[in-house]
Amino acid sequence: MTITITAFERSPDGGKGLARDTRVRWALEEAGLPYQVRLVSFADMKRPDHLAVHPFGQIPTYEEGSLSLFETGAIVLHIAERHPGLLPEDRESRARAITWMFAALNTVEPPILELANATIHERDMPWSAERLPLVKDRVRAPLNQLSARLGDAEWLDGTFSAGDLLMVSVLLRLRPSGILDEFRNLAAYVARGEARPAYRRAFAAQLAVNAPPVG
Amino acid sequence: MTITITAFERSPDGGKGLARDTRVRWALEEAGLPYQVRLVSFADMKRPDHLAVHPFGQIPTYEEGSLSLFETGAIVLHIAERHPGLLPEDRESRARAITWMFAALNTVEPPILELANATIHERDMPWSAERLPLVKDRVRAPLNQLSARLGDAEWLDGTFSAGDLLMVSVLLRLRPSGILDEFRNLAAYVARGEARPAYRRAFAAQLAVNAPPVG
Repeated sequence: MTITITAFERSPDGGKGLARDTRVRWALEEAGLPYQVRLVSFADMKRPDHLAVHPFGQIPTYEEGSLSLFETGAIVLHIAERHPGLLPEDRESRARAITWMFAALNTVEPPILELANATIHERDMPWSAERLPLVKDRVRAPLNQLSARLGDAEWLDGTFSAGDLLMVSVLLRLRPSGILDEFRNLAAYVARGEARPAYRRAFAAQLAVNAPPVG
Repeated sequence: MTITITAFERSPDGGKGLARDTRVRWALEEAGLPYQVRLVSFADMKRPDHLAVHPFGQIPTYEEGSLSLFETGAIVLHIAERHPGLLPEDRESRARAITWMFAALNTVEPPILELANATIHERDMPWSAERLPLVKDRVRAPLNQLSARLGDAEWLDGTFSAGDLLMVSVLLRLRPSGILDEFRNLAAYVARGEARPAYRRAFAAQLAVNAPPVG
């Protein structure tokens, strides 16, 4: 059955791979699944036909026959549950990998989203410079703990899983702030994720949309 | 097999049910599963034996034989996948219910966490009063869309699911701010969740720990 996802017609990051369709593309590439992409503009995302699929008016969405899903975490889990390569087969290892998916999205990402708000939407506010160190410390707190847990391991719990896919994707967003490089083992972990052939194909696919070659 | 969860020895909210063990207690009650609770202090949560189970040093955790999990979303999903009452049986409805779980935790909750930071940790900062309206608007944006999607429906997608359990639990946190009551249908939705016998048992159980009856 054909899989169709949505992505930005023009990503606000200009093709740095930070838009969330990259996470879904990566999962599809790890699972070896072909997919089609429907590009949407910011105006398209607020139209009733898109809101019917994604009530929050965002990308990505996932359509497969009569099934339509939104929320990156749910889409990645849906793919991971149905195809090998993203979740271990052992029952307990599988539950732990899913735990890391939620940890990425509900523990590590919220302070990173707050930092993005601070540096983008509140950049010109009078409190911006004074407040920023406090927001950055809020990001560092779970990273200290994540770094301690990861240690010198390659992935969070044995073999690469959808938990690593989401954690690497969340941590990636921190590179411009300099905070990722404060944690040597986390920076190396992210680099290992980015070096995977499936990630490279996903990154190239989103880049081709956002920064097509000249000529 | 015995299920043991952890909860605060003394919840910072004094028993209002906002600590995340309430979400897990609620899921266990919906599934009709007995459980034991191990109470932990803030000092306990930073000790190696607790960090071995929960790398971010938080509650709740979930232990069942040799399996130990953290992250509320993952625990609720683990319970929901194995026991009737929290996920529909139909494949597509089930995927959509899981989508609402992620929407609660990764779309609706992050700005609510940011609001909590603003009103608690940044309350005495010089920018606090001027910045608060901006943070509140950030909370309202997804709620406007959620309210439009829910309309007059009882639950988000047909029958009550783990998606509703997490969404109601996330929205509950907003009541003190007054923002929840700005959305008539969302306030009624939360009240429907709170009226469920399983929620009431979960709430009473956490209250008994935090505000034991005098005498």
